[in-house]
Amino acid sequence: MRPWRRAARRRAGRPHTALRGRTPYGYAEVVTFPVVGMVGGGQLARMTHEAGIPLGIRFRLLSASAQESAALAASDVVVGDHRDLATLREFARGCDVITFDHEHVPTEHLRALEAEGVPVRPGPEALKHAQDKGVMRARLTQAGVPCPRHRVVRDPADVAAFAAELAAELAAGPAADDGTSASADGDGSSPVSPVFPVPVVLKTVRGGYDGKGVWVVRTRDEAAVPFRAGVQVLAEEKVDFARELAACVVRSPHGQAVAYPVVESVQVGGVCDTVIAPAPGLDAERAVVAQELALRIAQELGVVGHMAVELFETRDGRVLVNELAMRPHNSGHWTQDGAVTSQFANHLRAVLDLPLGDPRARARWTVMANVLGGDYPDMYAAYRHCMARDPQLKIHMYGKDVKPGRKVGHVNTYGDDLADVRERAAHAAGYLRGTISE
Amino acid sequence: MRPWRRAARRRAGRPHTALRGRTPYGYAEVVTFPVVGMVGGGQLARMTHEAGIPLGIRFRLLSASAQESAALAASDVVVGDHRDLATLREFARGCDVITFDHEHVPTEHLRALEAEGVPVRPGPEALKHAQDKGVMRARLTQAGVPCPRHRVVRDPADVAAFAAELAAELAAGPAADDGTSASADGDGSSPVSPVFPVPVVLKTVRGGYDGKGVWVVRTRDEAAVPFRAGVQVLAEEKVDFARELAACVVRSPHGQAVAYPVVESVQVGGVCDTVIAPAPGLDAERAVVAQELALRIAQELGVVGHMAVELFETRDGRVLVNELAMRPHNSGHWTQDGAVTSQFANHLRAVLDLPLGDPRARARWTVMANVLGGDYPDMYAAYRHCMARDPQLKIHMYGKDVKPGRKVGHVNTYGDDLADVRERAAHAAGYLRGTISE
Repeated sequence: MRPWRRAARRRAGRPHTALRGRTPYGYAEVVTFPVVGMVGGGQLARMTHEAGIPLGIRFRLLSASAQESAALAASDVVVGDHRDLATLREFARGCDVITFDHEHVPTEHLRALEAEGVPVRPGPEALKHAQDKGVMRARLTQAGVPCPRHRVVRDPADVAAFAAELAAELAAGPAADDGTSASADGDGSSPVSPVFPVPVVLKTVRGGYDGKGVWVVRTRDEAAVPFRAGVQVLAEEKVDFARELAACVVRSPHGQAVAYPVVESVQVGGVCDTVIAPAPGLDAERAVVAQELALRIAQELGVVGHMAVELFETRDGRVLVNELAMRPHNSGHWTQDGAVTSQFANHLRAVLDLPLGDPRARARWTVMANVLGGDYPDMYAAYRHCMARDPQLKIHMYGKDVKPGRKVGHVNTYGDDLADVRERAAHAAGYLRGTISE
Repeated sequence: MRPWRRAARRRAGRPHTALRGRTPYGYAEVVTFPVVGMVGGGQLARMTHEAGIPLGIRFRLLSASAQESAALAASDVVVGDHRDLATLREFARGCDVITFDHEHVPTEHLRALEAEGVPVRPGPEALKHAQDKGVMRARLTQAGVPCPRHRVVRDPADVAAFAAELAAELAAGPAADDGTSASADGDGSSPVSPVFPVPVVLKTVRGGYDGKGVWVVRTRDEAAVPFRAGVQVLAEEKVDFARELAACVVRSPHGQAVAYPVVESVQVGGVCDTVIAPAPGLDAERAVVAQELALRIAQELGVVGHMAVELFETRDGRVLVNELAMRPHNSGHWTQDGAVTSQFANHLRAVLDLPLGDPRARARWTVMANVLGGDYPDMYAAYRHCMARDPQLKIHMYGKDVKPGRKVGHVNTYGDDLADVRERAAHAAGYLRGTISE
């Protein structure tokens, strides 16, 4: 951190405010542009910094290392451990508000900061629902939000019992609206077969992402794997979905909220591959249902900032909540080039309680394709090729070293012809990865 | 500068290239993403850094102070004097290419750097035409580019002689196409009246901007003012223009070039107030003439990067070149929200010899209005108000302290209805300045 940045002001009790000279009406309180502190140095923070530059916002980063994606682009970087309260406290001292590019800050630390008067947005009582899938499922179910059937499980026998009950319920009819499975003895002695009658999805309650921390299991042996790490595990019905959707919303502390168009998210190997905005062929009423659902969740949980609600669209025409992310999210990257206001700009506006920007699309279709690392560490020649092939291509690189399967960037394309827009995005992402050589 | 940034590589003779480990085909040259060094820490550098983030480009800044607009946003800042060759040389060591946010680096320093193998873009032999208005006028006139009548003048008597000749020529008919005035004795003893028959524009040959370094004079006494600073002075015909236009182009070292739509630039008090893209009511053929003129100038002068050609559209239907700027320019700020590829992104692509992005407009109309400082140092409350009034408004703040008349930001608006788009931009700029209270 540079010395002159150490002077970044934070005046307890008078956020954004300082006495700063004479106005035509004499000395007056002068509001200065605020400092937003973001915890986490990944690409989401990198792109939030980018969006903060035109807003005139001062962006401060707490990054695990100086080599992370955002640390390579941001002006004001503190290298430190987001799991350490003293580090967080020191970081917060230079900021008017704290927000996040991931969910990994311990909830108790956030409560401590909030108790000390630091504006934490989203706050811990909202964020815990994005940090703990068990808490999220319980809360959404209580609020009547449709979810896959689920239960926090203690051991493989518990999983087996859950599978048996799921099978019985699925035979009886569609999912209960409250999402809970009907009953559970969970004593581990239920007479279930070693091969489950239906597959079960197991998820670590905390910390999973991009397919990590998720298993689809069919036997007790397979079900034993997640428990070996000694973590809490949530069991869920494997939903027979037609496709995955995402409804992204932004909410501010004073309760203003905006909803982005509902998108289709195409996953490959548990990792988001392509996002299409808006979701092709989505029934207009169902799109509104999904947007209202996301807005209702944001309000119920007291979310501040951007929230992505990942949804399953089932073959029988329902939408079920898969995951929540309370931060900018991969399913919203298309907004950088495809919406009037990007998710990153609106996240900053929300955490600062500024009026939100228009979330509407600027193009008939926008497609985002993630760029994953391939076998070749050199992406620059491919990058040059992609620029030459498609002068309208919007490339977003994260400054990361290329490793196989690692998200190192994304591309956005837009236009009136969906087939063309998809082809251009897929080609660029494939060419950058090295799976297409033309 | 942070220690880990000191490791930024530059390999003399092998730009962008390093041996970096094993590929599937054994050890190979691996091209890494380049470092662009920009000299000058103003808002143009700030916005170029912003545009470089999605491109994955590493941006290095040479700024006169740590408090300048770009230094508040960029990650890699060297504080130093751009007039000092040793500073420039040390700065260039960490960069793959050097470019500029202003024209104030001494030409001889740029020649020295180039001679030492530093890629300087635009190079000194192009840039001198943007640094020295006398050199620019001579070169454009030689190339047959229509310019106002002009002459480098030595003293007030010389100005008086120029005014007399101008008056005679104007009485005789329209401007000669070669732009030079017909004759000049310039001995200071010509029998001219103390009040000139026509007004004359005097400009400092070097260093003027935003109306600074420009005088309109009608007497010898007035004409004496610019000479007092001991600088070289250029005298020009005061063109009776209908309006001002700007034709912006981008050219790369291998000769690819793109032309942005021609815009109208509305000046107030010598400072750009509003830019309208495209120029309303501009004859399509005349727009092409202006674009071709700018492309021809870029090629003739060997420009690399973005160049703005400021033009007078005369009442009798001609376009004359007013000024050249070889860098991102105020008349191109509308491209951030109104074009497929912004001037900043294309400037970076050009100086790196990457294929250029599509310069076409994304909206029927885009209007940019500059935000000048007013009497109130607090702009945050007005900023909040503007966001609430117009959720589609695109605000670009420069992080500068507010001083009366200082450019501290700009706004962009776009849409199908020009009157509405203009009103929204003008309102936001006026409200932020404090001249509109609603």
